[in-house]
Formats: sequence, structure tokens, C-alpha cells
Amino acid sequence: MRNVKTVIIGVGNIGNLHASNLLSEEIKGIELVGFCDTNPLKLEAAKKKYGADYHFYTQAEDVFADERVDAVIIATPHYDHPVLAIAALKAGKHALVEKPAGVYTKKVREMIEEAKRHPNLTLSLMYNQRMNPTYQKAKELVETGKIGELRRTNWIITNWYRSQSYYNSGGWRATWAGEGGGVLLNQDPHQLDLWQWICGMPERIYSFAYYGKRRNVEVETEVTAYAEYPNGATGVFVTTTTETPGTNRFEIVGSQGKIVIEEDQLKFWRTVMDETEWNDTYQGGFGEPEVWEIKIPVVFDGQTGHKKVTQNFVNHILYGEALISPAEDGIYGLSISNAIHLSSWTESWVTLPIDEDKFLEELTKRVEGSKEKTVEEQVLDTDGTY
Amino acid sequence: MRNVKTVIIGVGNIGNLHASNLLSEEIKGIELVGFCDTNPLKLEAAKKKYGADYHFYTQAEDVFADERVDAVIIATPHYDHPVLAIAALKAGKHALVEKPAGVYTKKVREMIEEAKRHPNLTLSLMYNQRMNPTYQKAKELVETGKIGELRRTNWIITNWYRSQSYYNSGGWRATWAGEGGGVLLNQDPHQLDLWQWICGMPERIYSFAYYGKRRNVEVETEVTAYAEYPNGATGVFVTTTTETPGTNRFEIVGSQGKIVIEEDQLKFWRTVMDETEWNDTYQGGFGEPEVWEIKIPVVFDGQTGHKKVTQNFVNHILYGEALISPAEDGIYGLSISNAIHLSSWTESWVTLPIDEDKFLEELTKRVEGSKEKTVEEQVLDTDGTY
Repeated sequence: MRNVKTVIIGVGNIGNLHASNLLSEEIKGIELVGFCDTNPLKLEAAKKKYGADYHFYTQAEDVFADERVDAVIIATPHYDHPVLAIAALKAGKHALVEKPAGVYTKKVREMIEEAKRHPNLTLSLMYNQRMNPTYQKAKELVETGKIGELRRTNWIITNWYRSQSYYNSGGWRATWAGEGGGVLLNQDPHQLDLWQWICGMPERIYSFAYYGKRRNVEVETEVTAYAEYPNGATGVFVTTTTETPGTNRFEIVGSQGKIVIEEDQLKFWRTVMDETEWNDTYQGGFGEPEVWEIKIPVVFDGQTGHKKVTQNFVNHILYGEALISPAEDGIYGLSISNAIHLSSWTESWVTLPIDEDKFLEELTKRVEGSKEKTVEEQVLDTDGTY
Repeated sequence: MRNVKTVIIGVGNIGNLHASNLLSEEIKGIELVGFCDTNPLKLEAAKKKYGADYHFYTQAEDVFADERVDAVIIATPHYDHPVLAIAALKAGKHALVEKPAGVYTKKVREMIEEAKRHPNLTLSLMYNQRMNPTYQKAKELVETGKIGELRRTNWIITNWYRSQSYYNSGGWRATWAGEGGGVLLNQDPHQLDLWQWICGMPERIYSFAYYGKRRNVEVETEVTAYAEYPNGATGVFVTTTTETPGTNRFEIVGSQGKIVIEEDQLKFWRTVMDETEWNDTYQGGFGEPEVWEIKIPVVFDGQTGHKKVTQNFVNHILYGEALISPAEDGIYGLSISNAIHLSSWTESWVTLPIDEDKFLEELTKRVEGSKEKTVEEQVLDTDGTY
């Protein structure tokens, strides 16, 4: 079967990361054939960096109209993700979409509906952290009942440090019009996806968000969200871009065990009896069920999640391999993200699924008041980002 | 100077712990001379356990009227703590009061006012965890500016596991009339005190509390509280008695460093430059200040905090040694506790200092609807409690 001829749309930080991945030759069955960016300077830089033997486009429409192209990787600012994905599908192209799936669920839902109309095309999302073996193991433990019934989740994810200099590297960055959000939209989509991928969707959210706190930006730079799950479990999600050294600690507690993931280490404890049953029968006053600490091997194979998800995208196109992060999964993490924003704006509980029109109305107000920053555009070194 | 002749009022779990401490002879300058309990069965049990060579009282008034007594240790249910402390002071007795200082701040404020009228008497609180060297070191690091300006606090304290059997061990336990609260009043007073002792008082609180969740009791068994501090820092406090194995992890983040205390280990990281200054000058896009992990010795000397605080109480009486947890400190942690309850009852922000009359009004409603459980009273083994 011939290689999947692929164009990268959006040649910023992440677009360049994709180019470097494709050129590594570690991903089989795919061929980088071109670059598209509306900014001619970025296109020029790509030409200088990668050579002139590629197709170069300033308009995505031209990529979609080009019969030499099989697939696109969409690495533009967030608003355009579902818009371009829909256009790609309509033009008969496969698409791998960077996170987040979009800025608001209503548009992502349209993208998912469009994908259903093209069963022969592949639409995948770059939820590369789903390939992290610690999160995969946590999901396995939860899904196979090893922690019993879910009781409590807690993710402190504050190691997304971003300086003012980072925010100043693009006029669209951290604006309502350009990104549609801050840490929730740009840095946290992975964690918001993994949170629900492993623990399931919460039922309602209450949140506390701070906009432009410690950074001169329009959007949120610090958030604490509280979640309630349908079964009575509760959850906390704490995030900021202004903390150093940051924390990345994810705790999942069930009726029969606890998982803690921190610094790529997974710890697992299990009680010999489910707490509910133990509590129903124990008569000794003080006392607690016996707990075993269990060491579970978690094997890292060295390849990045980005490459693995890209390989999976290619393998789905070529061989029908099951997708790791299919398009329809894009709605979940974004729903939580939208709910967190909406709760902080309305200072009230937000029940999921969210009122999409209400969210869009509130977002639109902010977009209308949004101002692009006057800065010099820069392509940054993405070492250390995901 | 002669020994401080002391009576223990309330011979339940903690009263017995105090008796055992005093009889260990590790605390110098104090002599256990008697026991007081309104429950004759408990008094009888104490007589059997400790011998008949003590004074035994069924009424606290009789202790206070007894000229052979210099001091009392108040280890009764919570409501009586400030009531008995006030009566003790009025009768010219020194008093060491178990945590919490009381159930509602209005009464504790009366106790503090009474103490001011008796400068020659000692009124101390059993905040024995202030003697834990990890918390002392954290307080030192914060107070001497080693973490810069406070940014974020996070305490997950869910290792207060209590079974239904524990709750059934006393009819007054975990009732509004008997205890005036659940995990916040009985288990968390230490953490609520340490939280403010180390990080200062928050400005306002929003909380989520669940009453009788997973246990057949009236009061809260699971709480998540969110705090804002005057300088813009934020905090989260998560607690429950129904989780096993529980977590006890306290994270304190500043503009120049981070402290994490978990499993009696203190970890400390420090950036070489304050984040605010670094962020103001850095121009490199992605990037983060250099971080040093610093190992700080924390020395445990083996003596329990209970004994140390008792020794401090005695030394204050005999030699004027500065009190570790003076009476006036009792208001702070309890204010936070009351604010958390009030926020969950009113489903709104509660600003500190709280509206004490409003709190008492809301508490009284619950006390009026409160029902004592019909159970057989038990004195439990307190190994493993604090």
C-alpha cells in the first residue's frame, strides 16, 4: 500500500514538532509532502528549514483541493481545528487534529457529525498522553475494578509553567479571540482528557478561575475545579501556568484501593476487602482494613506519544487499526473545560452535558471584547512541551 | 516548686490517653490526682484501671471547688471545652483544653476573654501536632521567606479513617447536639490549626460538604474546601473519614519555592530567583527558572506531641515558659472550620472573620433537629489516634 501523503497545516511550534517526527522515519507508511500556513513568514522559514522539495500553501483550501494529498495534520490555533477538520473531510482527506479538538463543544459536535458521514476517512485526535504507560495502567486498574468503586479523584497539574515571554510570542496567544481560553485550552487538554478517560465523566462542576493572574493576558492562568460524579464520587482539578517548580500528581481513590501517579511513577495500594463491606461488618471501634502496597511494572519503550498516535492514525488509514483517540472522544475533555469556564463565569454549578448555546453566548461576549496583543511572532523551541 | 496537682475531666478515649501520659513520669512537675466524669460507669472503670488512690468526681463543679486541685485537663465532648475552661478559670484553676477549642467561635471568644481576666492562670490548648518537627520546619521556611510570597496551599487529609463501629461507640458521637460537627470538629482541628499556623488565615472560603455520606451519622464525613488568602494565594483542603488507605499530603507553594509534607517527610524545592522577578525579565519563550531540591534535616526525638504540650503547660505554670498553643490561638482553626460549615449550609462564599451569630443560628437549627444515637457507650483503644 502506498504511503499516506500528508501536509502539515499550521507551521508553528507544534507543526514543526510534527515535521520533525515525520522526518525521523520512525513512523511507517506516512510521507510529509507539504506545509500550509497563512503567515508567509512561517512558510518561508519552513522552506529554509526543510528545503524547497515540498508543496507550500498559504490557504488550507488549496491543500484540500490538491489531489496529491491524502491527509492533513492540523496544528493551527485552536478555533480552526474543527473548522479545518470538517473542510478536510468534505474534501476527502484524512485528518489528524492537534489538541484541543476545538474551543467549544458545539463546533466539535459538528466535526464529529461530519466524520460520521465519511466512514472511509480517518479523523483522529492528538491525545498523545493516552500512550503514556502510567495512565494506561491506571485506566486498566480502574476499568477492571481493581480499586473497587470510584470515590475521589484529585489532579494537581501545575507544571505547565509559561512565562510572560511565552505569552508574548504570538499576538493570538492567550486571547479570547485567538485561543478561546488559557491553561484549560492550551496546556490542560491532555489532563482533562485523561481525567475522564480513566475516571469517567463528572455530573456537575463548580470552579474558581482567575483571568490574567500574574500574567498580562485575557484568559485564565489559574483554576481550581470541583467535580461531582454520578455515583457520588468527588474530584478536584488544580492547574496554573505561573508556578515553578510545578506539581503533576494525579490521585484516584476507590472503595478498594488508591492509585497515585507522580513524576511518571505509579503507586497502587489495595485493601484486602472492599471498604463498604468491611465497614458493614467491622465491630472494633478504631481500626482499618488491611492494606497492601502493590508494585506494578510500568514499561516505557522510549517512543513519544506523538509518534505513536501518528503511527496509529496511519495504521487506521492503511490497515483499519482501532484508533487510540478517535474524533468522537474530543468532546469529553472539552466539555469539562467548557463547564469549568462557564461555572467560573456564572459563579454557579454547571451540569454536564453543558448548555452549549449558553457557553457559546458567554464565550462570544469575551471574544467581542478581545484584543490581539501587539507582539513579534516567534516560533519557539518546543522541547519540553507536549 | 511543688507539682501541679491535676484532675482529668472526661475519662473517655483521650482522657485515658492523658492519664497514661501523666503516669508515664516523662512529664516533670505534674501529678495526676483525680478523675471526673458525669458517667459513673466510666468513673468506675477508671477506679478499676488506675486504683482507688485518686479523687473521683461526678461533677466538674466539685473539682473546681476542691482546693487540693491546681489544674484540670479538659477531655470532654467538644461543646463543654470552653464552658468548663471558663468555669475552671473562674475557680482559679489552670486548664489544658483538648482540641477543638470549642464548637463555635462565639463561645471560644468568651473563653479567651475570660483568660485575659486571669493573667496568673494558664490556659493552653492541645495542639500537639504543632510539636511535629516537619510542621515546625515548614512554618520556619514560610515565615523566614524561604518560599517567597505564598501562592497556593493544598492539604489532602483523608487518613482519618473511622468505621461505623467507631461512630456507634458513643451516642453523642457525630451528632449535632453531641459533637457539633464531624470530621472538621473531631479529626481535623490539628490540620486546620496547622494550615493557618503555617500559611496564615484565608480571607474567604467556599466549601462542599457531605453529611452522613457512607456513614449513618448526622454530621459531615467528607469535605472539600476552597480558600482565598488576602494576598491572592489560593488553597484547597480535602478531608474524609471514609477512605482507606488515606492520604496526608500538605503542599505549600510560594513565589520562590515549594514544600511538600507527606508521610512525615518534608521535601523542599527553591528557585534560584523569585518567579515574579524571573518572569519580569526572561525573554526566551519556553523556559523556567532553575530549581534546586534542598534536603533539610528534620529531627524526631521520639516524645509525642501530647507529652510535649503537657510539659509546656506545666512549665508555663511553674516557670513562665512561653506557651506553644495559647488559648487565643484556638479561634483560628475553629473559624476556618465554622466557615467551611457555613459555606456548605448557605452554598455561598463565607468571608472571615465569620458572622458568628449567623453561624450559631444555623448550628442551633441542626442541634434542635439532632438525635442521640442509641448505642452502648464504649471506651476505645486510642492507639493510632491523635
